[in-house]
Amino acid sequence: MNKNGPLSGLLVLDLTRVLVGPYCTMILSDLGARVIKVEAPEVGDDSRSFGPFIDDQSAYFMSLNRGKESIALNLKNENDKKIFEKILSKSDILVENFKPGTLEKWGFGYKKVSKKYPKLIYASASGFGQTGPFKSLPAYDMVVQGMGGLMSVTGHPNSEPTRVGTSIGDITAGLFTTIAINAALYDRKQTGKGMHIDVSMLDCQIAILENAIARYLSKGEIPGPLGSRHPSIAPFEAFKTKDSYIIIAAGNDKLFENMCKVLKINLHTHEKFKNNGNRSKNIDDLKKILELKLQTKSTSEWCKIFEENKIPCGPINNIKNAVESPQVAERNMIVSANHNKIGNFKMAGNPIKMSPYKDPSTRGEIPDLDQHRKKILDEFN
Amino acid sequence: MNKNGPLSGLLVLDLTRVLVGPYCTMILSDLGARVIKVEAPEVGDDSRSFGPFIDDQSAYFMSLNRGKESIALNLKNENDKKIFEKILSKSDILVENFKPGTLEKWGFGYKKVSKKYPKLIYASASGFGQTGPFKSLPAYDMVVQGMGGLMSVTGHPNSEPTRVGTSIGDITAGLFTTIAINAALYDRKQTGKGMHIDVSMLDCQIAILENAIARYLSKGEIPGPLGSRHPSIAPFEAFKTKDSYIIIAAGNDKLFENMCKVLKINLHTHEKFKNNGNRSKNIDDLKKILELKLQTKSTSEWCKIFEENKIPCGPINNIKNAVESPQVAERNMIVSANHNKIGNFKMAGNPIKMSPYKDPSTRGEIPDLDQHRKKILDEFN
Repeated sequence: MNKNGPLSGLLVLDLTRVLVGPYCTMILSDLGARVIKVEAPEVGDDSRSFGPFIDDQSAYFMSLNRGKESIALNLKNENDKKIFEKILSKSDILVENFKPGTLEKWGFGYKKVSKKYPKLIYASASGFGQTGPFKSLPAYDMVVQGMGGLMSVTGHPNSEPTRVGTSIGDITAGLFTTIAINAALYDRKQTGKGMHIDVSMLDCQIAILENAIARYLSKGEIPGPLGSRHPSIAPFEAFKTKDSYIIIAAGNDKLFENMCKVLKINLHTHEKFKNNGNRSKNIDDLKKILELKLQTKSTSEWCKIFEENKIPCGPINNIKNAVESPQVAERNMIVSANHNKIGNFKMAGNPIKMSPYKDPSTRGEIPDLDQHRKKILDEFN
Repeated sequence: MNKNGPLSGLLVLDLTRVLVGPYCTMILSDLGARVIKVEAPEVGDDSRSFGPFIDDQSAYFMSLNRGKESIALNLKNENDKKIFEKILSKSDILVENFKPGTLEKWGFGYKKVSKKYPKLIYASASGFGQTGPFKSLPAYDMVVQGMGGLMSVTGHPNSEPTRVGTSIGDITAGLFTTIAINAALYDRKQTGKGMHIDVSMLDCQIAILENAIARYLSKGEIPGPLGSRHPSIAPFEAFKTKDSYIIIAAGNDKLFENMCKVLKINLHTHEKFKNNGNRSKNIDDLKKILELKLQTKSTSEWCKIFEENKIPCGPINNIKNAVESPQVAERNMIVSANHNKIGNFKMAGNPIKMSPYKDPSTRGEIPDLDQHRKKILDEFN
């Protein structure tokens, strides 16, 4: 056993496609589990056809499936079902993100499977969950971002609808599913039993609303989008500088006072700005005053000055600058993996750093469709 | 032992404040762990002073700290350190989100603590991590949203800077920390040893960039904000209707064809729109044609029609509509907890649904500052 993480020695049967499920099983793989990805014959994971492409290979797919083995199986075909069943019989965890009912139809629903394999952890991630009036509706990230309220608080007042620039509906559900699987593994150590995990993307959207949901449920206020502004802390937003913008997050009175001293403007003693409540009320006036001053230097000049004075601040990096940050390099957050046709491919690393385990900068291979068929068939028969 | 989740019987010593840490320990509590929150005397968790308020109690704090016990301790005071040490000696997990080095200064750094308590799982969440050139810089959600690149892909082309309307920098780091703690619990069952977990908010921002990072690392393209539009799937955005907007996520050719049939417009056979690649190139033209049609009915009329035809769609709900959705109710995603001064308080529920465990609609009490002092002192001495 190659002990390269806490989940070493565990086998994950991965029936997931696109983002929510593959994101979860990628983390399980990063944590040391062996992941066998079962894909539809010929087409494979839908995301194999999502751009951008390198030599016909989807960079999107590659960035989510490092360190997994691939076998193509048609779960409606009797012979393929037998192969699947053999892998299943040795698996610790099954992860799937089909529409509820799909695996039941193919004879692999939780009820049936758990009778035969009571130790199996069976995790289902779906758009709306395994229960409730919407359970059969199809969902994609955009749909739950809209339905769950997040889009209503993202963007600028009166702007056209704005989605979060990453598929946060999928990603948060992938993260909650991964938490659940790990907790179920601990549970199984105590009880000897597996379980069914049911995570819905819409539920996860509700769970991350934070300030906005507290505001509505406690006060009946319906918050709207605020651009870059925080709804209850000021100053806590992006300000114009000489060349672009700077984010300043002076989250308490002390930080605000320090910022005023650095800027040599005496605002912290002024009634309108002396505490967070007053600053929040008068934020438009405050912003005008601050921007007059901030537009005298560039973002990088201000960042240097504020950092020296321990005032939380930062630039708005584009993806290139973000990825090339020295901190990101030092934290090994850009890693690479091999693909048998493309060669070396770069992608985001694993943000979970654990003292007993290495955090390798080269990860397990990215599978071509059905690449590990022979190896898997030889092993599971 | 009240067996109300997989982590029942485990003790979490919670030194966290504001969002990233408290979000993590709330999930640990939801999973059944006992959480003792150590707060600074007099002021407590900083978020106790964040609005909105109900009778001087922060709804923000209340929404993140259900089911935890509170004791106020000054970790610079020798007597309080002794009390802390007694709780620590019985703890399975310590979670903290101080700036790196803070707990070392007070004599409770990982190295020292782990020598005495080798089974302890010690989880540190921070803005930039325990290592690297930025480790000592202060960070808030806004700062890492800006620095990590997410803000550069959120918003409309040429719009002012736009943050995600929820503190996704804190929340994703809270989720990754929770995954790590659960994996470490499983690991401890195998090895008998604890570990140090080091999660950085900036690392997590890199880990969720998805499409944007694949695009940059594979093609050198620097993606910008696209409003509500998906960068590689079309149609996959918000469209104007008679009364507001509808999100349509026709993620593949079959769904697009079905949508065209429902709308009675023959676009799917047209060269410009016949596959996803062509539709992506001609999305502005496609949007104009679709909106002409979609503006003949209201969002709810279209949603009904599309849902009947299994085309992924949805409204852009405000927070009220999102929270009051029948699906959200059916999934028990709005729960309540008692606060000894406020009474019943409503908040988001737990999106992790596990077959062996109940998902109660009433959760453990929200602690007032130092509320459980006597009980905790009586128990740990």
